[in-house]
Amino acid sequence: QKTSVQRCLCKGEVNMVRVQRIEKIEVYPASPSCDNVEIVVTLKNGAGQKCLNPESNFAKNYIKRAIKKR
Amino acid sequence: QKTSVQRCLCKGEVNMVRVQRIEKIEVYPASPSCDNVEIVVTLKNGAGQKCLNPESNFAKNYIKRAIKKR
Repeated sequence: QKTSVQRCLCKGEVNMVRVQRIEKIEVYPASPSCDNVEIVVTLKNGAGQKCLNPESNFAKNYIKRAIKKR
Repeated sequence: QKTSVQRCLCKGEVNMVRVQRIEKIEVYPASPSCDNVEIVVTLKNGAGQKCLNPESNFAKNYIKRAIKKR
């Protein structure tokens, strides 16, 4: 069984981020280097980044709503 | 009526990107600098970036599916 070297970005994940603090969301589909989806949220005002649990309701609802708003 | 200076990232948008070519998806929520959501897809192998129409079925379905896959 080929043991693939995993280079996932996220170590720990939060289940929620206050929407007003979000500057950008990056979604990394599963890939050879990391076999699960990863979501990295960049916070406003240089407050850094957080990994968001893709399974969290927040991730599912917020991202869906974000791409609907026009 | 305050004319806000808009600095949106995207000029033209595509409605679809081949999934295998996607390295990363960036979702920029509406903000003071751009009052609509913008989605920037980074393609693999340094093939550059494309703006994806947030209203496209592909955007809605693919991003939802991407965050579900674990």
